[in-house]
Amino acid sequence: MIRVGVVGGSGYIGGELLRLLVCHPNVEVALATSDRLRGQRIDTVHPNLRGRTDLTFRGRGEVVECDVLFFATPHRETMGVLPKMAPLAPCLIDLSGDFRLHDVDAYERHYGVRHANPGLVGDFVTGLPEFGHREAIREADRISVPGCTATAAMLALAPLVELVEQEVLVDARTGSSGSGTGGGTADSHSLRSGAMRVFAPVGHRHEAEIAQATGMSVRMSATGVEAVRGVQVVCQLRGREALSELDVRRAFRGWYGDEPFVRIVAHRRGAFRYPDPKILLGSNYCDVGFAVGEDGIRITTIGAIDNLMKGGAGAAVQCLNIRMEWPETLGLEFPGLHPA
Amino acid sequence: MIRVGVVGGSGYIGGELLRLLVCHPNVEVALATSDRLRGQRIDTVHPNLRGRTDLTFRGRGEVVECDVLFFATPHRETMGVLPKMAPLAPCLIDLSGDFRLHDVDAYERHYGVRHANPGLVGDFVTGLPEFGHREAIREADRISVPGCTATAAMLALAPLVELVEQEVLVDARTGSSGSGTGGGTADSHSLRSGAMRVFAPVGHRHEAEIAQATGMSVRMSATGVEAVRGVQVVCQLRGREALSELDVRRAFRGWYGDEPFVRIVAHRRGAFRYPDPKILLGSNYCDVGFAVGEDGIRITTIGAIDNLMKGGAGAAVQCLNIRMEWPETLGLEFPGLHPA
Amino acid sequence: MIRVGVVGGSGYIGGELLRLLVCHPNVEVALATSDRLRGQRIDTVHPNLRGRTDLTFRGRGEVVECDVLFFATPHRETMGVLPKMAPLAPCLIDLSGDFRLHDVDAYERHYGVRHANPGLVGDFVTGLPEFGHREAIREADRISVPGCTATAAMLALAPLVELVEQEVLVDARTGSSGSGTGGGTADSHSLRSGAMRVFAPVGHRHEAEIAQATGMSVRMSATGVEAVRGVQVVCQLRGREALSELDVRRAFRGWYGDEPFVRIVAHRRGAFRYPDPKILLGSNYCDVGFAVGEDGIRITTIGAIDNLMKGGAGAAVQCLNIRMEWPETLGLEFPGLHPA
Amino acid sequence: MIRVGVVGGSGYIGGELLRLLVCHPNVEVALATSDRLRGQRIDTVHPNLRGRTDLTFRGRGEVVECDVLFFATPHRETMGVLPKMAPLAPCLIDLSGDFRLHDVDAYERHYGVRHANPGLVGDFVTGLPEFGHREAIREADRISVPGCTATAAMLALAPLVELVEQEVLVDARTGSSGSGTGGGTADSHSLRSGAMRVFAPVGHRHEAEIAQATGMSVRMSATGVEAVRGVQVVCQLRGREALSELDVRRAFRGWYGDEPFVRIVAHRRGAFRYPDPKILLGSNYCDVGFAVGEDGIRITTIGAIDNLMKGGAGAAVQCLNIRMEWPETLGLEFPGLHPA
Repeated sequence: MIRVGVVGGSGYIGGELLRLLVCHPNVEVALATSDRLRGQRIDTVHPNLRGRTDLTFRGRGEVVECDVLFFATPHRETMGVLPKMAPLAPCLIDLSGDFRLHDVDAYERHYGVRHANPGLVGDFVTGLPEFGHREAIREADRISVPGCTATAAMLALAPLVELVEQEVLVDARTGSSGSGTGGGTADSHSLRSGAMRVFAPVGHRHEAEIAQATGMSVRMSATGVEAVRGVQVVCQLRGREALSELDVRRAFRGWYGDEPFVRIVAHRRGAFRYPDPKILLGSNYCDVGFAVGEDGIRITTIGAIDNLMKGGAGAAVQCLNIRMEWPETLGLEFPGLHPA
Repeated sequence: MIRVGVVGGSGYIGGELLRLLVCHPNVEVALATSDRLRGQRIDTVHPNLRGRTDLTFRGRGEVVECDVLFFATPHRETMGVLPKMAPLAPCLIDLSGDFRLHDVDAYERHYGVRHANPGLVGDFVTGLPEFGHREAIREADRISVPGCTATAAMLALAPLVELVEQEVLVDARTGSSGSGTGGGTADSHSLRSGAMRVFAPVGHRHEAEIAQATGMSVRMSATGVEAVRGVQVVCQLRGREALSELDVRRAFRGWYGDEPFVRIVAHRRGAFRYPDPKILLGSNYCDVGFAVGEDGIRITTIGAIDNLMKGGAGAAVQCLNIRMEWPETLGLEFPGLHPA
Repeated sequence: MIRVGVVGGSGYIGGELLRLLVCHPNVEVALATSDRLRGQRIDTVHPNLRGRTDLTFRGRGEVVECDVLFFATPHRETMGVLPKMAPLAPCLIDLSGDFRLHDVDAYERHYGVRHANPGLVGDFVTGLPEFGHREAIREADRISVPGCTATAAMLALAPLVELVEQEVLVDARTGSSGSGTGGGTADSHSLRSGAMRVFAPVGHRHEAEIAQATGMSVRMSATGVEAVRGVQVVCQLRGREALSELDVRRAFRGWYGDEPFVRIVAHRRGAFRYPDPKILLGSNYCDVGFAVGEDGIRITTIGAIDNLMKGGAGAAVQCLNIRMEWPETLGLEFPGLHPA
Repeated sequence: MIRVGVVGGSGYIGGELLRLLVCHPNVEVALATSDRLRGQRIDTVHPNLRGRTDLTFRGRGEVVECDVLFFATPHRETMGVLPKMAPLAPCLIDLSGDFRLHDVDAYERHYGVRHANPGLVGDFVTGLPEFGHREAIREADRISVPGCTATAAMLALAPLVELVEQEVLVDARTGSSGSGTGGGTADSHSLRSGAMRVFAPVGHRHEAEIAQATGMSVRMSATGVEAVRGVQVVCQLRGREALSELDVRRAFRGWYGDEPFVRIVAHRRGAFRYPDPKILLGSNYCDVGFAVGEDGIRITTIGAIDNLMKGGAGAAVQCLNIRMEWPETLGLEFPGLHPA
């Protein structure tokens, strides 16, 4: 049993992390912070945890020593908070965007502020084991979990990077939980229900992450659609030469053959023949699929995740498992629901 | 052509009213107010009106003389605002709750504040033509449109009042637009989507209105369900003596035979054999239906409306039409969409 | 490890059962049947199980000996199927409606056919541990899991049966998964989305089950609302004498104090202050709550479940755990998701 | 007043057409056909028309002479049915896919069958006035309304065809009503709710229509998302040279300045700053918008429609109005609902 803390525990990602950690067999949750809800039970905002924990929120000033500290604090804020708490735990896992981009100019361009601690950025390992980071995670004391749409895109692209042209077009669709708990008018049910809201027609922030990881030239657009959880990316590629469906399938199988959390979903029939986040609620899977145009040149790849799981809290726990040398799927066994 | 103004034009009811009035053939919209959005185009918050009007919001202090003023201002606030503007128009139509209850003690009990202008309450005619108020509306200079769930319940109960026992149980289900544009966390899509939120297990505010209108002893509960628009009430009654389905159907037909906006919906088959707000979006219908238990004593009646139409803006325009001696359905012809 | 089989494994309840059993640490799934899908992998219709099992469907004629057989076959069909397979397993757990009602005349009235095996009905123990059946389940070789709305109602009513008048009104709201996989036009997304479909204004079939269990006179109505999973019941009662909220809370606490799967949810504040199936997806909880009218006489109680879990497959596995003398929550630990 | 008939009146497009025609001031609906529902009232399947019409369905053999016949019959079937009925009306308006493609080989490739009446294809004028066909429609006796996603794409692309490179990528998102009334399992609410179902990762059928109209090389993918009505397309283009946002806005304004049913929606702020079908329910608008990447080369354009209106029945009535030299918006004035 290790002791962990969650800094920023009142949001959706923080709540999902607390759900996973409270139910994790090898973990004791020592603390969760929320300055706004200090002193209140965590199940007042995470009602699914009723009957599972009596934990109450602490203020950020009350964080104590732990084995691992998770940061589910907002972008721009985390780069200030994390360094101060670093002495309290040997291992830090950040779920914000603040330590994802190695290029601090790109950070400034995409997040609109100068990075407060550029010297620390290089300390962070990318928390995406399936993209070649598993060994580094095993040794890491600083882990940065990628953004949700970036994760889906990176995993939908990885097997083909060597086979396709540089330029890729990524279209992302996201559920409402990705907007967080802020609850502005635009996030209200009346305005969001049934909407197809193009919130980033060009230049979505995660372009930079995907480009950094894949070396590709990435053009990304994003639309909010009706769902609470879920991210799907549809990536449009051009093969360097004509490829058959079997070529592409082999590339995916080669890359993901033994991965516990990546499933290849490209079937001939059925309502779920391509990756759909609908069947992933609560699961840590990233489903990936593909289709090849008649010319063999046009290739579409698809990735789907639960944005709060593989796109956030689940990925963080997967990294924890790797780092602790526990079975990688520990506490992440839930397969998702159908129908739901 | 008459000139009208909408005081409180930025909310959902105000927006629906503006849609109806902008498209109404006999009406010119002279003004709409919103202190918060003063100077902005009304289509910034009512995007369905793009291309239909260039109107901008005024402050409340800028209201000028009109033929009719509509009030879509909040409960508790309207009773202060309306009297001040009364000199500006010979006819006032209020959509708030402030002039619905004739008993100001009941008002205080349900709205939590002492009524500011008790002397005016008696001037208002109830804006529900189908409940016997049509003649009074024709003569009225002060009209108060009933609450949305009250409207549905009053119309689902009216034909049977003389045939059933005093005590009635009304269960109301409402879509998210009934919560208004406030946009708190509880109204966010993530928290409201797919919810069945019992927000009034006992003692819903509209009990008083329904009791006032019907003379019955009303027990009401209410649940928010997944829909943007729509109110449905299911009323549980006991016949004074055993009734056949035909008895009940005759009572409904007798009451509603010629009503342009009430349809009797009680069929043997089909997905829409009882009233369902799903097919009423944008329409001014109140669909009413019924079923009789095997014993002939237990009777269930059902009412469904679009809460922003027959439950608010549509009812207000219907009253306007009656008051102006225009065809009652003028500007309210839209039949609803299927499917939608 | 015991070996189990699922007869009727292609529907939603069958699929949920397979999900739970495949993930259950003490169970090996020996077989699942579907005559229609014979020879096909079970993950073709239960896509959440991709990567979890290689099981294929068998025909009903290919059922072999097991330790426990579950029946997720349709009402009316199960009473013929189950007796034939009874020799193959010492313990049978039925999820259909065929062995729930002890009075076969009531069965005929509600299911429209004469019961084919009336002599067997008495062998079945009701699979609802929280209603006083736990000890009987521990010894039972024939268990009949109650209907989903009946479960929610029985648990919302149980603590107050002695304190209230005989007559109760139960209003049930159900998600679309309760209609099964049939997929008729009425179940299509276009017709069901956002609907409030009163499908049983009087005389819902589960009236008989609730009456049998509670001894009350039950009047039940039911409406399909927009949700995939979820059942909620709102029960309207009258206290024999005036009760305080504390009296009612004590009754609930007394009844459910130690129950692992019943939570009392009756809070002053928050979007989830009463039971809402929205936070129960995939969990085996039944949340129960209550409110007391100002007069102390009118009492509303509320129950919420995931209809495929506590309303079906989860309840069946809970019964299995009790019967096998395993921890009651084994394989049922998932707490539900928030938000989802 | 002219007399019209609707061949194939039981589907969603047929029902929407009947709604528009029944409410149209210059039209008398002489007949609607459905072999399956022959003799039944049309409001049994189009419940929004209750109280508006007493029309009953006829069989196809009972079609009589009319001024205009509309065909809302299925693809592949219409090319056989329409020629037989052609003698019955001087003007035919087809909403199926059978007379859209001028190249019958392309038809065969996309619809999977040899065209039955290739000689007639050339008689049909494309029913999209905003794409330069208005004058031809005014004279036409045979009009073919484009496919829903094709309409949205053609209107989102038209102003830029001369300014961009040949290759365009169109990503389409569609609501469930686009799947028709068939009601297979995949269309059930449980499977479709909240889904992001990529049903055409490459090679969607409407590619051919868009290519035919624009002369561009079109690559199209399509995903079913949660909505009943609505189609949105997001088109990815590359400018031949760097363009400013103002350049693009001018191109759109030049093209659509006077169009009654196209609105340019590209704002800096707000939940509806880009085209979203959510605000178009029941309206005949096509909203179009755009965004320009920092490099001035990457351009995204967006189109949104109600698939049953501008994507089908509304477009057909617009063509009727033009053909009859009535005001183009007659019977199509409904502005859409907000919120809904």
